[in-house]
Amino acid sequence: MKETKASGQETLIWGIRPLIEAFLAGKEIDRVYLQKGLKSNVFGELWPHLKESKVPFTYVPSFKLDKMAPSRNHQGVVAQISPVRFQPLDEVVQITFEKGETPLLLILDRITDVRNFGAIIRTAECAGVHGIIFPDKQSSPVSGDAAKTSAGALMRMPLVRTHSLVNAIEYLQQSGFQVIAATEKTDDSLYSLDLKVPTAIVMGSEEDGVSPGILKRVDGRARIPLMGDIGSLNVSVAAGILLYEVIRQRTQKQDV
Amino acid sequence: MKETKASGQETLIWGIRPLIEAFLAGKEIDRVYLQKGLKSNVFGELWPHLKESKVPFTYVPSFKLDKMAPSRNHQGVVAQISPVRFQPLDEVVQITFEKGETPLLLILDRITDVRNFGAIIRTAECAGVHGIIFPDKQSSPVSGDAAKTSAGALMRMPLVRTHSLVNAIEYLQQSGFQVIAATEKTDDSLYSLDLKVPTAIVMGSEEDGVSPGILKRVDGRARIPLMGDIGSLNVSVAAGILLYEVIRQRTQKQDV
Repeated sequence: MKETKASGQETLIWGIRPLIEAFLAGKEIDRVYLQKGLKSNVFGELWPHLKESKVPFTYVPSFKLDKMAPSRNHQGVVAQISPVRFQPLDEVVQITFEKGETPLLLILDRITDVRNFGAIIRTAECAGVHGIIFPDKQSSPVSGDAAKTSAGALMRMPLVRTHSLVNAIEYLQQSGFQVIAATEKTDDSLYSLDLKVPTAIVMGSEEDGVSPGILKRVDGRARIPLMGDIGSLNVSVAAGILLYEVIRQRTQKQDV
Repeated sequence: MKETKASGQETLIWGIRPLIEAFLAGKEIDRVYLQKGLKSNVFGELWPHLKESKVPFTYVPSFKLDKMAPSRNHQGVVAQISPVRFQPLDEVVQITFEKGETPLLLILDRITDVRNFGAIIRTAECAGVHGIIFPDKQSSPVSGDAAKTSAGALMRMPLVRTHSLVNAIEYLQQSGFQVIAATEKTDDSLYSLDLKVPTAIVMGSEEDGVSPGILKRVDGRARIPLMGDIGSLNVSVAAGILLYEVIRQRTQKQDV
C-alpha cells in the first residue's frame, strides 16, 4: 500500500486501489479528499466503501491533492489515515467496567478547534478518563496537530468516533452511566452534583455550548460558577475544572 | 509624542526624545528595542531612564527596528507601550481587602509563553482573582497576543509587575496572605489545603515549575493528582483547577 509519513504523525495514502485496500484492511481512515468534478463512475469500487464506512469526505480542487501527494498519481483521491485507533463504544464501556474503577468518560460535542481538542485529551489523560467520544462530523481532525497539543495523550486515550452522539448517550445511560452536560443553562453548580457514580461529561462547542438535542437527553447539568465580567472559560480549562471535581469527589474521603 | 496603534492593541513609540518623554510621563513601557551596535553616548539622556526604570530591553538588528517602525526615523530606539496599566502591589492588596471579599491573588513565576500567559489571565478573571503578580524579567510580554488569548481579561485584571517575586511574597505574607505553590514536589493534595483564608497561588514555569528560591518561602504546597501516564497538565489548565478549588471551598457551605 502506498503510504507516507507526513510531519506530525499524519499518514497519507492516495490512489483508488490503495484506498480500497485500506478500507478492506480495516485501517482507520480519518478523512478522504476527492477531486472536485470527479465523476462518480471513476471511483468505481471505492464509492460503496466510502459510503458504507461513513468516513468524512471533502471535495477539493485538484491542485490541493497535488500538494498533498506531490508528483504522485493520486487519481483524484487522497486519504488521511488516523494516527490513532478508534474503538467501538461497547468495547470501551466493557473494558472500563472490567478495570474495577468507577468509569469516567468524556463526550465532545462539536469541538472543532484542533488545539482545544488536543488540550482536552491531554487533560483527560491526566484525570484518568477512560475514553473520549466524539461525532464523526463537526469534530476536530484527529491529526498530528491534535497529537502534538495533546502531548502524546491522543495515542494512549481510547477514542470512540460515533455517527450519533444521541445514540451513544442513550447507550451509556442504559449501561448505568449518568450523563452530565457542562452548560451555563442551569442553576446547578457542578459542586452540587454527585459525581462518584459512573459518569460521562459532555463538553459543548466553543461557539454555542452543548447542542439542544443533547441537553434534552442528559441526566444532569453542571454550571461552572463565573465570578468575573468576561463570562467564558476556554473549553479545555472548563473540561479540566469539571474532570478534577470528579477526581476530588472520588479521592477525598468524608466529602459530601 | 509619536505613537501608533499596531494590530492587537500594541502601541509603539520610536525615537530617543519621544521615549524620554514617555518615561517622564509615567507611561507603562513594556519593552525597549535598541539597535545592535548603537553606542551608548548616542542614547544620551535616555540611558539613565532606561536603567532606573528597569524596563526590559533587547538589542536587535536595525532591520528589525525598520520593520517595527517603517519609514520612520527611529534613531535606533523603538519601545512597546503596554496596553494595560500596572499597579503597585500594596495598592492592589489594599483595594482587595477593602472590597470585603476574601483576597485571592495569582503569582506567575516565569510563565514565558504568551498564549499560556493570556489563557491564565482569562481563567483568573473568570475565577474572580483580584490581581496577578509576575516578574519584570522571564515573563511573557504583556502584548496584543496576550490580550487576545486572554479574551480581553488582560485589560480588566489588576497587574503587578515586580522586580523581585521573593520580596512580593514576603510582603503578602506580612499582609496576612498564605502563599501556596502549585508543585509536584509534595505529598499534599490541593484538596487537603484550607483555601478559605486570604491566599496567593504561585504557578511555575512550563519547564521546571516553581523555582527553588520561591518554594522555600511559601506557606504550603499543592499537588494536583495525576492519574495518567503523561504526567503533566498544561499550566493554564492547572491554574484553572487550583483557582476553582478555591472557589469551591469558598462558595460551598458545610464543606471541610
